[in-house]
Amino acid sequence: MSTQQQAQKAEQLRKLHHGPRILTLPNAWDVASARVVEELGYPAIATTSAGVAFALGYPDGQQISRDEMLDMVSRIANAVRVPVTADMEAGYGTTVDDMADTAKAIVAAGAVGLNLEDVTGPDASSHVDSNLQVEKIRTIRKVSASLGVSLVINARTDIYLMPIGPEETRFERTVQRLRAYREAGADCLFAPGLRDADTIAKLVKALDAPLNILVNAGSPSLKELEKMGVARASTGSAAMRATLGLLRRVGKELLDTGTYNSGLDGAIPFAEVNKLLEPRNR
Amino acid sequence: MSTQQQAQKAEQLRKLHHGPRILTLPNAWDVASARVVEELGYPAIATTSAGVAFALGYPDGQQISRDEMLDMVSRIANAVRVPVTADMEAGYGTTVDDMADTAKAIVAAGAVGLNLEDVTGPDASSHVDSNLQVEKIRTIRKVSASLGVSLVINARTDIYLMPIGPEETRFERTVQRLRAYREAGADCLFAPGLRDADTIAKLVKALDAPLNILVNAGSPSLKELEKMGVARASTGSAAMRATLGLLRRVGKELLDTGTYNSGLDGAIPFAEVNKLLEPRNR
Repeated sequence: MSTQQQAQKAEQLRKLHHGPRILTLPNAWDVASARVVEELGYPAIATTSAGVAFALGYPDGQQISRDEMLDMVSRIANAVRVPVTADMEAGYGTTVDDMADTAKAIVAAGAVGLNLEDVTGPDASSHVDSNLQVEKIRTIRKVSASLGVSLVINARTDIYLMPIGPEETRFERTVQRLRAYREAGADCLFAPGLRDADTIAKLVKALDAPLNILVNAGSPSLKELEKMGVARASTGSAAMRATLGLLRRVGKELLDTGTYNSGLDGAIPFAEVNKLLEPRNR
Repeated sequence: MSTQQQAQKAEQLRKLHHGPRILTLPNAWDVASARVVEELGYPAIATTSAGVAFALGYPDGQQISRDEMLDMVSRIANAVRVPVTADMEAGYGTTVDDMADTAKAIVAAGAVGLNLEDVTGPDASSHVDSNLQVEKIRTIRKVSASLGVSLVINARTDIYLMPIGPEETRFERTVQRLRAYREAGADCLFAPGLRDADTIAKLVKALDAPLNILVNAGSPSLKELEKMGVARASTGSAAMRATLGLLRRVGKELLDTGTYNSGLDGAIPFAEVNKLLEPRNR
């Protein structure tokens, strides 16, 4: 892929945040899952860092290396035709210089966007100082633009997800953080952990910028989210963990009764998966 | 893992082919799937080469490199405590010397067994000469033993799967091949594509050696296979392709109705998957 083609894909992904329809991303964790999602007609592929980490043998939370994460991202970017955005946890590093390296590595991997969290560890004590996070976002914008591929930055705060700090100030702190991230150059703002419809609607209004909501069984429907003005919805690691749930049911049935009724018959036929993975001219 | 520990695991896996119960292996394709299977109580992990290839972006049929295949095998072997046997297609090479390299690489990856097919390409024309296949098996036995880890060899003929040659001689050619592979040192013989109960029972008697049958929705139950004397049953890529089927249903529902009822609620909880992937003292 030429730099020009990659830059076009970045613009394509950026525009999808401003269309009439909500941008829906069932996150992929390997090449097969990415190809299945692409084949359904999704206009972009977003990875789940937790899913990639699980597949490669790590728990979530920056235990995997940047190189290993991007190796899978690069395999996906090479296999699909649509834009790919990489979930990069907190950027695999703590400094602004680390983020410069991360931006370069993302572009080299063939991705055109990223998710960037504002916690670097397993608890609230690792919440990155807001000014530092702003500098990180600015650096990614600047470095990637200098390479000719201005990455689509989805800046995330983990205030609701973790959660961080007292409940009564959660909403305002989220707004403050996300506004600062937007001013630093983020294209989209991400508040995982937020599932209450009224609060989501309120946040959309308070931000006046594309907002990403993490969805799962029990979330407001995509139509409802779209009506509220949510720009992007993603499933995070849910679909990957759902597949592990299916494997567990299949494996348990084999152990318990020695039969095959737990979903093997819902498999995509071998020849069809094989064809999905055939190299394609791009 | 010391060589001694690895050798013990090989003997552990070998013995499982001679127990009172059929050795059942729901094949894994990445670390998360392997840990789910191990956690259910399975005594060994077998990989599916097609599943690993799909996950990493290749169609089946030795399109992936030996190193990439074994990188995933090694990740799995590092993450589980039970013995791991690697599906190595036709051994990633065509010569006896290639098999020596493959045997060394399998041992280095921490696996203690392998599947070895007798076709190297997409059609019957690539059916390996029986004498050459025998030499390959002997070499793997000899080289791995010289390293202190005598690999558990599951020697496969693709006569039924592909299928190869006229139907009326299929059974006898299968018996001839598999007997020759057994004499060359194979621990278990594998005839994928064979699903008819009577023929399976006949093959068990004709071979007088551990036999592996590929199972899927519609196969005789594990109890029936056990009663016939089948030593080992594996699902091949079926479980992996079933998970892709689930992802497709989830993704299609998101597109069509914007809802989340196709199986996301059957997901293993995030904290539980995270814990499955925690590093463990072994």
